Amino acid sequence: MKNDKIRCGVVGLGGRGFSILAGLLATMEDFECAYACDLYQDRVDYTLKQMTERFGYTPKGTTDWREILEDKDVDAVFVLSAWEPHIEIAIASMNAGKPVAIEVGGAYSLDDCWQLVRTYERTRVPCMFLENCCYGRIEMMVLNMVKNDVFGTVVHCAGGYHHNLRDEILFGEENRHYRLRNYTNRNCENYPTHELGPIMKILNINRGNRMMTLSAVSSSAHGLNEYAQRHEKVNPELRTRVFRQGDVVTTTIKCANGETIVLTLDTTLPRYYSRGFQVRGTKAMYEEQTNSFFFEGEHEKFDFDWSKQWNNADQYYEKYEHPLWQKFISGGIKGGHGGMDWLVYDAFLQAVKNGENMPIDVYDAAALMCVSTLSEDSIALAGAPVAIPDFTNGRWYNRDDHTTGIYSLE
Amino acid sequence: MKNDKIRCGVVGLGGRGFSILAGLLATMEDFECAYACDLYQDRVDYTLKQMTERFGYTPKGTTDWREILEDKDVDAVFVLSAWEPHIEIAIASMNAGKPVAIEVGGAYSLDDCWQLVRTYERTRVPCMFLENCCYGRIEMMVLNMVKNDVFGTVVHCAGGYHHNLRDEILFGEENRHYRLRNYTNRNCENYPTHELGPIMKILNINRGNRMMTLSAVSSSAHGLNEYAQRHEKVNPELRTRVFRQGDVVTTTIKCANGETIVLTLDTTLPRYYSRGFQVRGTKAMYEEQTNSFFFEGEHEKFDFDWSKQWNNADQYYEKYEHPLWQKFISGGIKGGHGGMDWLVYDAFLQAVKNGENMPIDVYDAAALMCVSTLSEDSIALAGAPVAIPDFTNGRWYNRDDHTTGIYSLE
Repeated sequence: MKNDKIRCGVVGLGGRGFSILAGLLATMEDFECAYACDLYQDRVDYTLKQMTERFGYTPKGTTDWREILEDKDVDAVFVLSAWEPHIEIAIASMNAGKPVAIEVGGAYSLDDCWQLVRTYERTRVPCMFLENCCYGRIEMMVLNMVKNDVFGTVVHCAGGYHHNLRDEILFGEENRHYRLRNYTNRNCENYPTHELGPIMKILNINRGNRMMTLSAVSSSAHGLNEYAQRHEKVNPELRTRVFRQGDVVTTTIKCANGETIVLTLDTTLPRYYSRGFQVRGTKAMYEEQTNSFFFEGEHEKFDFDWSKQWNNADQYYEKYEHPLWQKFISGGIKGGHGGMDWLVYDAFLQAVKNGENMPIDVYDAAALMCVSTLSEDSIALAGAPVAIPDFTNGRWYNRDDHTTGIYSLE
Repeated sequence: MKNDKIRCGVVGLGGRGFSILAGLLATMEDFECAYACDLYQDRVDYTLKQMTERFGYTPKGTTDWREILEDKDVDAVFVLSAWEPHIEIAIASMNAGKPVAIEVGGAYSLDDCWQLVRTYERTRVPCMFLENCCYGRIEMMVLNMVKNDVFGTVVHCAGGYHHNLRDEILFGEENRHYRLRNYTNRNCENYPTHELGPIMKILNINRGNRMMTLSAVSSSAHGLNEYAQRHEKVNPELRTRVFRQGDVVTTTIKCANGETIVLTLDTTLPRYYSRGFQVRGTKAMYEEQTNSFFFEGEHEKFDFDWSKQWNNADQYYEKYEHPLWQKFISGGIKGGHGGMDWLVYDAFLQAVKNGENMPIDVYDAAALMCVSTLSEDSIALAGAPVAIPDFTNGRWYNRDDHTTGIYSLE
C-alpha cells in the first residue's frame, strides 16, 4: 500500500492504543497502520484480526517494538503503550530516523527527560507529545482569549486529573495494568499533563517563560483498599495491599514570570470526571467546575448566588472560538474525546508531512513529563521544593523554532 | 444596668466591629455593650452616638483598650480590631481575668501563638476564636455527615478565601485599613481561618489529629496595581506601589492522620465570592463551587454533563441538617452572614455563662492563626515545608476537656 498516507508503526495495543488505532483508521485520511506491536501476543493477534475484518488489510505484527524501527516501510511511530517505556521507545525511534509521537504519561527519572531532549538535538528527528487536552475546545478558546488579552495578566492557573479510576485499577488484568503497578509502587503526580499541557501553552512555557520549582504533597491512601473491601469480585489481596499512591496529590509549580500552577491528581475516590481547569487573570477568570467565565465589569463580584452564572461559558464560543475549532466544527468533528484526540494526532501527521516544527515538541514533552518524577521526589521529601530543569538551556527567552499554521499553540 | 446580661467590652469599631456590635445589640438577649473602644476617637464618638440613638443607652468609650480591662463592670471582651493586636489584647484580657473572644485573622509570629496558649494554661480564663464559618449551615451539615460516616474515611479537604477585596483595600482610608498595610508589607496566607476552621473540626484537629507541616507558594502580585491603574479615584501612588502580597497563595497542609488540606487566598483578582469548601472521603464528596454532593453508588462517576448534579446539596438538609441548625431555623435565623455570626458569638456567651469549655478554644486559635506566620516563612523559603507546632503538647491524642451541648463542634 504505497500512497501519500503516512505509514505508521503503532506500539501499544491495550485499551487506549487499540481504541486510538481504530479511531484513526476510521477517520484519518493521512494515517496508515503499517506495523502493530504489543508486549502481549494475544493483543497483536486481536488487533490484526480486527483490522483485517474492519479495514480490509493486515499490517505486520510483532511483540518487539525494535522490529518496527528497523522496517523501511514505516514512516513514523506512535507510542501508545504503558507509561514506563514511552521515553525509551521515543529515543530509539529518533535514533532510527523515524518521527515519533508519544501518548501522555509521566517520566520516571530526570535523566530520561534529558536523554529525550539530547537525542532530538543530535538527530533533529521530530518528536511530539500527544497531549490531546491542548486541543480541547474550551482549552483552545481560553488560549485564544488569553492571547487576545481578555484575561489581562494571567497570574494563576489550576488543573487536575479528577477521574475515579478504581474500577480500572482494581478490576483490570492483574499483571498487565500499568496503573496497578504504579499505584502499588510509586507516590507522585503520575498523570500531570491534563491539564498542565494547556496551561503551559497559556503561560508561554518554553517560549518566554519557564517552570522553576515544584512542590508536591500527598494524602494518605484509603480509596483503593476500601473500595476493594466493598467489592467481592476484587482479588482479595488488593483489600489489604499497601498502595503507596496517595488518593489526592497536590502539586504547586512556580514559573519564572511569577505565575503559580496548582495540579491535582485525584483518581481513587468517588467523584464525577473533571480536569479542574482554571485560569485567573487581572481582568477575567475561567472555572471548569461551573463551566463559567467571570469578566471584570460584566459580572457581579459579590453575589452569594453565583449559580446564576454557572454554565455561561458556551455563550462565548461565538465570539472567542479558536480558529482551529471554527474550521473543525464546520468540517464535522471527528474522533474520540470530543474531537481532541483526532486533532492532536492530525497535528503530528501534518507537521511530519510538511516538515514543520511540532506544536507540542520535545522541550514541552520533557517539561511535562518531568513533573511525575519531580513530584515523587518532593513528596518523599515532605513537600520540599525541587528545581524544574530548563530543558531549553536558556533558549526559552526567545526561541527561533516557532510553530506556524492552524495547529500552532503559540 | 445590672441584669443577667454579660457586660462586654468591645475593642475595634471599624467596619466589622461596628456592624457586629449593632447586630448583637439588636438580636442577642445575653449581650450588653458596657465599653466601646477604638484607636480612633471619631469611631468611638460615632459608636456611642449611634448606640444612644438606636438602643437608648451610652456605654463608656475609650481609645485605650487597657482601660476596659481595668473596669470591674466588664465581664468579657470581644476583640474585633485590626489583625495585628488580636493576640496581644487576648493575652492581656486573660491576664485581667476577663473571658475573651477574638475575631478572625492570622498571627505574626509563632511566639505570639505560644504566648496565647501559655497564658490560658496559666490563668484558665476562657479564650475563644470567633470563626463564624465553623457555624455555617453547610459546614455544619457536612460536619454532621462526616461524624455519621456518610463520607467514609476523609482523606482530603480544601477551602479558601475567594473574595475580591480590591475596592476595600484600595479605596479605604489610607492609614487605617489593616489590609492595605498588610498587602503592602507581607506575603502570606493572611486570612486562613475561613475555611480552615470548619475543616479542622471535620478532621478532629487537636482532638485525635493534628496538623504537621505546611508549605505555601505565592503567585506574583498584579491585581491591585492593574486595578488601581484603571480607576481614577485611587491614590495615584497605589498604581505603582510594590505590593508584596501575591494575588493567589496556595497553602498545603499535611495532618498526622495523613489527610491533606489545601487553602487558597484569592482576594485581588476579579471573581465571585466563594469559600471553596471541599471534603473528599472514600464514600462521598462535597464541593461548594457547584453546591453538590457526590455519593458512592448514588451518583454517576463518569458523566461529562456533571451540571445535572449541580445544586443538589440543598435537598440533603432534610436528612442531615445539624441539630444546632434545626433548632436555629425553627426559632428564626438571626444576625449577619446567614446567621453564623450570631451563632458563633452566642456560642461564646453561652460557654462563659455556663462555665463550659470553648468550642473553638485557645489551642484551635493558635493552630488556625499560626498558618499566617508559617505561610509567610514558607513563601520566603520558596515553598519549603515548615513544621506546625503541637500547641497541645501531645494532649491531642486524647484530650479530656471536651465540649458538650448544642454548640459543640466535636
